[in-house]
This record gives sequence, structure tokens and C-alpha cells, in this order.
Amino acid sequence: MAIKKIDPMAQLMPGTGDMSAEQFRALGYQYVDWVSHYLETVGEKPVLSQVKPGWVKSQLPSSPPQDPESLSQAIDDLDRIITPANTHWNHPGFFAYFSITGSTPGILGELVSAAYNVNGMLWKTSPACTELEEVVLDWLKQMLGLPRDWFGLVNDTASVASLCAIAAARESLDLKIREEGMAGRTDLPALCLYTSEHSHSSIEKGAIVLGIGQKNVRKIAVDAEFKMRADALESAILEDLAAGRRPFCVCATVGTTSTTSVDPVPAIADICERYHLWLHVDAAYAGSAAVLPEFRYILDGCDRADSFITNPHKWMFTPVDFSAFYTRHPEILRRAFTLVPEYLRTDQGEEVRDLMNYGVSMGRRFRALKFWFVVRAFGVAGIQARLREHIRLAKRLAGWIDAHPDFERLAPTPFSTVCFRAHPKGVDDESKLEALNEQLLERVNATGRAFLSHTKLGGRFTIRWAIGNLRTDEARVEETWKILEDSLQEIHQGRKV
Amino acid sequence: MAIKKIDPMAQLMPGTGDMSAEQFRALGYQYVDWVSHYLETVGEKPVLSQVKPGWVKSQLPSSPPQDPESLSQAIDDLDRIITPANTHWNHPGFFAYFSITGSTPGILGELVSAAYNVNGMLWKTSPACTELEEVVLDWLKQMLGLPRDWFGLVNDTASVASLCAIAAARESLDLKIREEGMAGRTDLPALCLYTSEHSHSSIEKGAIVLGIGQKNVRKIAVDAEFKMRADALESAILEDLAAGRRPFCVCATVGTTSTTSVDPVPAIADICERYHLWLHVDAAYAGSAAVLPEFRYILDGCDRADSFITNPHKWMFTPVDFSAFYTRHPEILRRAFTLVPEYLRTDQGEEVRDLMNYGVSMGRRFRALKFWFVVRAFGVAGIQARLREHIRLAKRLAGWIDAHPDFERLAPTPFSTVCFRAHPKGVDDESKLEALNEQLLERVNATGRAFLSHTKLGGRFTIRWAIGNLRTDEARVEETWKILEDSLQEIHQGRKV
Repeated sequence: MAIKKIDPMAQLMPGTGDMSAEQFRALGYQYVDWVSHYLETVGEKPVLSQVKPGWVKSQLPSSPPQDPESLSQAIDDLDRIITPANTHWNHPGFFAYFSITGSTPGILGELVSAAYNVNGMLWKTSPACTELEEVVLDWLKQMLGLPRDWFGLVNDTASVASLCAIAAARESLDLKIREEGMAGRTDLPALCLYTSEHSHSSIEKGAIVLGIGQKNVRKIAVDAEFKMRADALESAILEDLAAGRRPFCVCATVGTTSTTSVDPVPAIADICERYHLWLHVDAAYAGSAAVLPEFRYILDGCDRADSFITNPHKWMFTPVDFSAFYTRHPEILRRAFTLVPEYLRTDQGEEVRDLMNYGVSMGRRFRALKFWFVVRAFGVAGIQARLREHIRLAKRLAGWIDAHPDFERLAPTPFSTVCFRAHPKGVDDESKLEALNEQLLERVNATGRAFLSHTKLGGRFTIRWAIGNLRTDEARVEETWKILEDSLQEIHQGRKV
Repeated sequence: MAIKKIDPMAQLMPGTGDMSAEQFRALGYQYVDWVSHYLETVGEKPVLSQVKPGWVKSQLPSSPPQDPESLSQAIDDLDRIITPANTHWNHPGFFAYFSITGSTPGILGELVSAAYNVNGMLWKTSPACTELEEVVLDWLKQMLGLPRDWFGLVNDTASVASLCAIAAARESLDLKIREEGMAGRTDLPALCLYTSEHSHSSIEKGAIVLGIGQKNVRKIAVDAEFKMRADALESAILEDLAAGRRPFCVCATVGTTSTTSVDPVPAIADICERYHLWLHVDAAYAGSAAVLPEFRYILDGCDRADSFITNPHKWMFTPVDFSAFYTRHPEILRRAFTLVPEYLRTDQGEEVRDLMNYGVSMGRRFRALKFWFVVRAFGVAGIQARLREHIRLAKRLAGWIDAHPDFERLAPTPFSTVCFRAHPKGVDDESKLEALNEQLLERVNATGRAFLSHTKLGGRFTIRWAIGNLRTDEARVEETWKILEDSLQEIHQGRKV
């Protein structure tokens, strides 16, 4: 694309200033054009970056520039260095991990957020940041059918939000861990946390960081559909109690990372109530699906959770990062995290919430803006229509797999993520199947037209195909399926030669 | 400003799409115009928001819209609801806490980052995100004179980065805390962390989260210039050792929050080496000043630190959030945080760094872009010129205070933050002085022309005036000083009446 050059030295005003308004507008239009062009053409680029390790570094100056450079020039570098070295998460053929979207309303929200550049640590440091966060998190509760009286705030990621939840669970024990710590005490039992063997690694990481220890994380077995077995959960709790350890927290998942399975939250909530354990629900991916009335049931029992997270930056078209965190015990969460030095004391007192007191980070970006823009620009109906379409596409794909003699599905497909593998007739050796599917995956990803990822299910190498990008349409799904079929064919023929 | 309306229903393409390129361009230009206008006029708005708690909520719909709304309409809401309810951190009269800037190059960087919307958790999920981060953090090392062989990565905030540092320090003890946790063990001593009574609250918060406990955080006394006393540090360590506790980490500060004092890092490093303690240096604010050769000395001894943080989002014109974290022990940091589930295994192995393994968050935004844009657009010389100007303005201000019979400085002014109070002749009662200065601060902030914050120094209520925004010029500083003088005068006259 043609770029109007701006004199690099003229960009910056003398003295203490930044760009002039006129200069910013001219440059801003160029960048809007660049974004527009990028989004329009991203589907033609290789999804998975094909650069070698070290290539980006080799393209960039080893030292910072002494004098100002033109940001028009930087556009060329985006096209020449950054774009080819990106794996394109905003690409319609991105089917790896969980497929996400930085939608245009969300992009504009981030633009505004960067311009305001507030730190919403206290209510008074940006009443708009604090209150808009409260409003949009209340909207989200309504969209998903969550209890209206829950307290909510936004974290960057589910990893951090789950750590905060487990920290609150630990604080709820009233064992003076905040005051006295955990090391060197003879009055503390080992603390045990329960989660399924299919929960996200961030749960275990949270337990490591919080000093719970990996050996006190019980990875509860799953059933044939990869859902946590409530009976196994209860057995594990009883075993720990008998051994004098202290169960304190259960992390259930609505939409596990590998297969998007939904743990039996009502049965788990019963157990948590029976043994007085904190119930945390990680609905980072699948929570969004509850915006559909026909999927509302996936959150059954979640109203009994002590804490709950879902990530609009996964399947609700909001640019990373935006993880919604809810709890019905804000005072416990606050106790786990609050520290107000003199330099942050305010007059507002109990009248307002200072959100820095409810998590690790003191600094808080104005993240609510982008989600506000997304919900307004799509409307609830627009979000619903798009989620339904993703689920429909996944269902079609599952049908093709089921009907194909050389492919098989390896897990149910409750949402828009399909777990499967090639399994040609006569090939039953597991190590051969693993090698075959690894080769197949690599071949598909090497085309640049699609990017799929993998997992293991019951020891079997499994291809994961996650649908969730706004630009993914039926034609793209069909094309990728054709690539998979053809690639398998080619591998077969290669072998025969 | 005049806004061209776009048909709300036409904004969204039917089916699974987002906006068309043309629609995005039209809307994007409107938003660039809005940002440009905002930045041009922000100095005329009240710095500290004057809305009452609950006002923002009262202005917004209590439920999410069912149907799409126009994002042209949303611009009106920014002007009507969000802007008046914001405290304007990008305002030239923002002198509270630490004054920061979301500069225009940084804003454009965030725009591009949102458009790419990558998650740089693994090298392969965005080689550009991982490698550009490495490159710009290497540039920053050169700019500040830090050891080139340190490993670096970007965190959102210093709070999270310091938590990561303390977690690495804990892991370095080889006490199997990762594996076995800390509770219910009889083989662990209490772990003690040392930091000055003037260090940032995030250090103590990190210790709380990590299960160290508040009572094991030793707040070391400071000298008359608010610097940690190395002798007091060593005494505290010896006392803990004698009592059978285990000292493990010292957090020194280069630029404390209240007074920007610089702890004696060389002496502290000596002590850390003597007792084999992890030395973490929090240079979140003042680290940037080392970009000036004449201020390079503030980092003396920091080359001996085990971990080090500085925040370009504080005093290097980068929009929040961007906290640079360095350590010379990447393998220990990795051991504290790595967990690689099957679904995230890659073929690159040791050839690349997967940055999710070095911190709490698995998800990682493409933050390097905005800092890259800032350094390129300003150049090192441009950043130096602006920091020098801020320091010059603070020095002038300190001079006015020192020369005024009714004001006094309460701390040295090593950088661009001035601590002072009104102290009229004859008023020597501390509670009267506190009431007077609170009233003065409130009066100044109520003008809307400037926003200053406070702290306490040796029990004395202290007004903090931090200079750090790009738009702050000499005229603004003079005006604010005049407002202070006049306000003090008015308070006096009010009393006399």
C-alpha cells in the first residue's frame, strides 16, 4: 500500500511536547488504513509463522536509535518484519488452542483506552474506569444468567484470576496465613486443592505460586467424557481428611482446554458444601456459550460457586486481555489482597470500591472500554448469532469426521472445538498412529492455510480444531477439511512409493 | 466536534463477519479524530474527576443492548459520560502519584497490538512478539547501562513483576516449595524478606500472596534522606538468623514512591552476598532516569542484583501496561513458574524461549510494539531531552519552595518529584499543619487545573508534586505554583474573617 511519508524530525514538537494534533491525525489515518488492510488480507497470509528462531532479531537494529525515526517508516517494518513473523490469531484459519478475535469494535476500544491512559487503581484515579467495569460486568452477568449480586472485576488473564481465587480460598480458612505466612509454622496442616486431570495448567501454577505445592494438588480422574468424577473427588477429600490434611478448594472447569468438557458442577457444589470447601469455577472458554439460551444449562450449579471466571477475550470478540472474575465473597478477596499505604489513602472510604484492593496488580488498565464497545457494536443478538454459527460449523465438521472411514472423533463436541485423529483402517498400533497424526498436523499447518494444535487424550495423540474467529466461515472450514483429507492421502501415497 | 453518523445496522456484516474494511476505515478516522481532539484539549478539562460516586452507573443502561448500536454514537458517550468521569492521567496538570504519559507513538503501538491480537505465550504462537520483546528489552538495557547478559521479559505491572522476583528468590532456596508447598511441613524455617519502610506496598503484597506472611517482612528503617539503612538491614538479618529464621530476599528501591529516594544498593549488595540473599531492585519509577549519563550513577550496584524491574509506562512515555523485568537467573525464574501441558508442547525445544514459562500469566499481550514505537519516535536523545526538562522543572519548583517563607521541602528532590508542605511562620502544631495542608491540597485539586497527591514523612502530612507528563511545560508549573500560593493566602484570609 502507498504510504505518505512524514518528515521524521517534524513529527515531534520541540520542547516537552508530543506530536501536534495535525501530525497525529495524519499518522493515525495511516495506521487505521494499515489495520484495515491487515484485517482485510490476513486470511491470505500463512497462519502459523514460518520464520526460523532468531530471524526477527536479525532484522532489527541491535541498538536503539539515537535520533527520532518516522513512524511512517515503522509501518514498512510491520509489513516486512513483524507480520511475517507473527502467527495470526486474527486469521480465519486459526483453529489452534482456542480461536479468538480482536474484533474491530474491540480494537477501537483499545485505541481509546491507550489515549486516556488511566490507571484505575482507585475509584478517584478514574471513576469511569471503576464504574464502567462494574456496569459491563453486570451486563455480562445478565448475558450469562449469573447471580446479579456477585462482585466482579476484570483481570488480565484467567491465570491471574484463578490465582486470586485460590488466594481468597486460602484466606477464607482464617489460618492467619496473610499475617504469619506458611513456612516455619507447626500449627498448619497441609492444604489440599482438587481439580480434574483435565483442568488448565494455571490452576496448578496458582497452587505452586501460593505455596500450596504440587503434591497437594489432587488431579481427580475424569469419566469417559473427560468430566471430573464427583465420586473420585469425594474419595480424595476423605482420604486427605483421614490423613490429617486440610482440603480447602475445588476448581471445576466449564469447558476444559483439551476437549471443552463440562465438569458436573452441581454434584461438585454439593460436595463443596458438605466439606466446607471453596468452589472456584473456571469457565474461561465455554462461559461465553451461556449467552445462548439453549446453552444456559452449562452453568447449572455455578450460582453456588464461591468464585467464577470467564474470558470475553476468548470467545466474545474482545482483544486480549480481558478476564472477568466474580465472587460472592468480595470481603474475603479484599482481605487476601488489600494494603493501602498512606500515599493511596482517599476520602471516599466505604462509599466506593478501590479495585487495586482485590488482586495482585496495583496498576489497572481501562479494559472495560473495549468490552463495552464489543457488546454495543454486536448487540447481544449479534454475539449470539456468531456463537451459534461457530457451533454449527463445528457440528458439521464433527459430522464429516464421523462419516469418514479414516478419521475418528476422540471426544464429544459440546461447543465449537473438535478433537479427532486420522485412524486409517488396519493401522492400530498407537505409536504408528501418533507418528501419522503428528505428520498430518505438521503437513496441514505447513500449508499456511490453517493452524490446528494437538493434545493427548487417554495417551492418544489428538488433533484439536477450535472454531472461534469472526472471520471463519463455512468455506474456510470446508477448505481446511479438504486439506486434511488430501494431506492424509499424500502421506499414504508417500508411504506406498 | 462534528461526527459523521454511520447507520448502526450497516456497521456489521451479515453472517460471521465483522465490519467491512471501508466501514472500519471511516469509523477509525473518526476515532483518530476523537483521540487527537482529546489530547489537544485535555489540558482544559478538570484533571481530577469531579463526579460523585455512582454517577457513571446512573448514566448507563442497566442492561446490555439486544441489537447493534453505532460506535459513532459511542463517541458521544465518551464525551458525555466517560471523559467527565475520568481523572486525566494524560493531562499536563496531572502531578499526583507518578505522572505518566500515553504518548502518541505508544497509542499507535497499542492500536497495532490490538489488531494483531496475538497471544505470545509460546515462541511459535508469535515469534515476533517474543523476539521483539527481547530486542527492545536489550535496547532498554543499553539505554540504562544494565548488564547485557541479563534475561528480560515484560510484565503488566511492577506488582506482578516483584511477585515473580520474590517467587524466584523463594525457589532459589531449594526447599522443595514448588513440589511440597509450605504448609504442614516441619522442616521449613520461617522465611524472611527485607525491604525499607519506604518501599512500595507491592513488595509486602507479594510476600502475602507467596505465603511468606506480613510478620516476616522486615521494614528496615531509613536515614534522614529516606534511604534504607544498610546497618539496620544487617542487624535485622543477624537477629533473624539467631532466632533460627531464614533470610532469603532483600528488595531495594531506586526511587521510592513517597520521596523517590535511592537505597544504597552497593552496600545492600555487599550484605546480600555476605548472607547469600536474593537481591531484587525495584526501580519502577526512577530507573528511567539512568537514560541520562549524569544520572547513570543511580543504578550503581544494580549490576549485582539478582532481579531488577523498571517501568517504561511510568517515565518513558509508554502507555500502561509495560513493566520490564530482568534477572540473571532465568533458570531459577523458570523453575518457579514453568508448567507445560501436552496441549502446549512444541518442537522448538531449547532453541527458543517460551515466555509463558517465566511468570504467572499464560496469556501474553504484544506489549513490545508500543515501546518499540516510543523509542523510535523519540529516539534516545528525545527521551533524554524530555527527562532533563522534567528534572529542570522540578528543580525550579524546589527553588521556589525553598525561597518561600510559608512553604518548606520535606525531602530531597533527586528526580522530578517534590515533597513539601505549607508551613507558615508561627504555626508549629503538627495537627494544625496537617489540617492546613489537607485543606490546601483539596483546594488546589478542586480548581481542576492540577492534581497533586500526598504522603506522610516522619508523621508529617506531605504534598507530593510529581512531574512526568509530556504535555507539562513551564507555564503549567508556574500556574500551579501560583494556585498553591493563592490558595494558601485564601485559607489564611478565611481564617482571619
